[in-house]
Amino acid sequence: MKIGIADTTFARYDMAKTAADELRRWMSASIQRYTVPGIKDLPVASKKLIEESGCDIVMALGMPGSKPIDKQCAHEASTGLIRAQLMTNRHIIEVFVYEDEASSDKELARLADARTREHAQNVYRLLNNRLTPDAGKGKREGFADEEPVDF
Amino acid sequence: MKIGIADTTFARYDMAKTAADELRRWMSASIQRYTVPGIKDLPVASKKLIEESGCDIVMALGMPGSKPIDKQCAHEASTGLIRAQLMTNRHIIEVFVYEDEASSDKELARLADARTREHAQNVYRLLNNRLTPDAGKGKREGFADEEPVDF
Amino acid sequence: MKIGIADTTFARYDMAKTAADELRRWMSASIQRYTVPGIKDLPVASKKLIEESGCDIVMALGMPGSKPIDKQCAHEASTGLIRAQLMTNRHIIEVFVYEDEASSDKELARLADARTREHAQNVYRLLNNRLTPDAGKGKREGFADEEPVDF
Amino acid sequence: MKIGIADTTFARYDMAKTAADELRRWMSASIQRYTVPGIKDLPVASKKLIEESGCDIVMALGMPGSKPIDKQCAHEASTGLIRAQLMTNRHIIEVFVYEDEASSDKELARLADARTREHAQNVYRLLNNRLTPDAGKGKREGFADEEPVDF
Amino acid sequence: MKIGIADTTFARYDMAKTAADELRRWMSASIQRYTVPGIKDLPVASKKLIEESGCDIVMALGMPGSKPIDKQCAHEASTGLIRAQLMTNRHIIEVFVYEDEASSDKELARLADARTREHAQNVYRLLNNRLTPDAGKGKREGFADEEPVDF
Repeated sequence: MKIGIADTTFARYDMAKTAADELRRWMSASIQRYTVPGIKDLPVASKKLIEESGCDIVMALGMPGSKPIDKQCAHEASTGLIRAQLMTNRHIIEVFVYEDEASSDKELARLADARTREHAQNVYRLLNNRLTPDAGKGKREGFADEEPVDF
Repeated sequence: MKIGIADTTFARYDMAKTAADELRRWMSASIQRYTVPGIKDLPVASKKLIEESGCDIVMALGMPGSKPIDKQCAHEASTGLIRAQLMTNRHIIEVFVYEDEASSDKELARLADARTREHAQNVYRLLNNRLTPDAGKGKREGFADEEPVDF
Repeated sequence: MKIGIADTTFARYDMAKTAADELRRWMSASIQRYTVPGIKDLPVASKKLIEESGCDIVMALGMPGSKPIDKQCAHEASTGLIRAQLMTNRHIIEVFVYEDEASSDKELARLADARTREHAQNVYRLLNNRLTPDAGKGKREGFADEEPVDF
Repeated sequence: MKIGIADTTFARYDMAKTAADELRRWMSASIQRYTVPGIKDLPVASKKLIEESGCDIVMALGMPGSKPIDKQCAHEASTGLIRAQLMTNRHIIEVFVYEDEASSDKELARLADARTREHAQNVYRLLNNRLTPDAGKGKREGFADEEPVDF
Repeated sequence: MKIGIADTTFARYDMAKTAADELRRWMSASIQRYTVPGIKDLPVASKKLIEESGCDIVMALGMPGSKPIDKQCAHEASTGLIRAQLMTNRHIIEVFVYEDEASSDKELARLADARTREHAQNVYRLLNNRLTPDAGKGKREGFADEEPVDF
């Protein structure tokens, strides 16, 4: 197994280091890291990791700012990440942490760390087809899970 | 016939179980289930179900949250699901239930169950070319139908 | 000539019947009808009509609801219809009637009927390269035309 | 050189006639005109002009209305025009005049005429690689140019 | 190494000259410049620079205006630039400066110059795989960097 990690210089936390650290807790995969300037550079970076470096799956890590233009950038990046997946038939797990999801720098770092770790676990479980036991369980990455509902 | 069901750990109701249960009421198809973290992972999951697992049609089940970012995610996922269909010439029936469509947890579960069942029936009828009798009839999945109009 | 008509069970008026009726007033084409649940299913349905049923052109008929989510669905469907056209080099004439374009059920039915008929005429004229005489003339389908402008 | 002109019956000014008139002032190209109902039909029309009629470049002319739905249509059309360019490696120069850019019918006609002419000149200069002398000069089509800035 | 620079006549500052000047400070690459009318023409221009002129990477330079329609154009252009990258597996570094990011003409020119230079440095470092040391460091192009966060 080869796992790609694409990250940015724009982000304010080294999410790639966290991702690699967490992945190594669950599996002994080869990890390839590729850093680009911003989130809009992540789609092609992820596709190159898959097609040129032979990665089986990619984590695309980014931290969009809080201005309207940043949200539009994130929308464009997400759309591109989905398109890249459809072109390669490989998963690219998007881990985006919006600056305005946290009310302080400390909280932002904590959120980035937690969300990245939980998505690294998702990568491991997805590769091994182990997510179905949690299907419909209200799982949230980085925040507390929601309660499942019933009637 | 092989039917794919793609679902998420983000959702708060096990819509895939409902879908499989309802499908079995109408047909004896082979069902393949594939669980991913969130709705943005559904497009490639659905495409893999079609191209790698040989499914003839896919149900893509998700429950977007109520925040603006969740609606944007749903928009990106929907766009990707349409693209995946165009790339494969296969239908992917999107069954999304927005958390803010219901005013209580119980109602949310009920809505998710009802919409999933009605779309499972759509899958059966679509595969057998039996939807034309209801064309233009104001059909709604999960809520009461609308009245057809005339002049 | 083979003309595809894709329509939905969501719509509240049988636009496909109107379309076929009007087309037959102008030409003796073979008509293939394909009904799907909602407008987001129209792009792949139209592409299948072109690629699998050999249609030369398709009319994609839908009636988006009046809620914000319905408008987003229409946007996604329209984007998909354009993509399907670019993938096939065939025209897909989108005929969408928004529920909130009319102030009563009667008016909605009348509008759906009129717009569908005028677009069926467009299909005939487009296939025969006869639209240029009306270029720049402010044509509107379903409502009164606008005046051309000059200086 | 063969130049395609795609226009609509929805527009309220015969922009194609203006485009052809202006193009002939600068070059002796063969011109192919193709009229469709509305701006959302322009992407595939432009692609057909390139791929089926052998055009080297296309002008896509349209006049979106002033309602929100018209702006969304324009957004979808523009997205499709860019996609068509990427699929063909040919330029499609979009000339859209929004009805609400002008405060009177006369002004709207004047704007449509002026913008079309200036973009026809762009087509000529783009084909001959002559736009670089105006790079960064604040050029505007149809309105007065902006001043370049410096520090 | 061959670097493409795509720019526009719409911009109010000669960002391409700045880009070439800065690139030459770091590397001795061959530079190919291609000027188009506006930002929506940049995606196909960039793709042509890659596929027809053999560029290894492209800088796409533009200066969107401050009106809502300009922001929509920028969104469409960005989406197209990402799509072009995915079709070619080459990076296209988007350098967009929004007119309303600056409060005076002088500041706008300064911002365009600074952002272009910093992105030219990104191009050099990206080509040489040297961006990882700055990953997660809150880098901003044209404005002061943000502080990294920790917990």
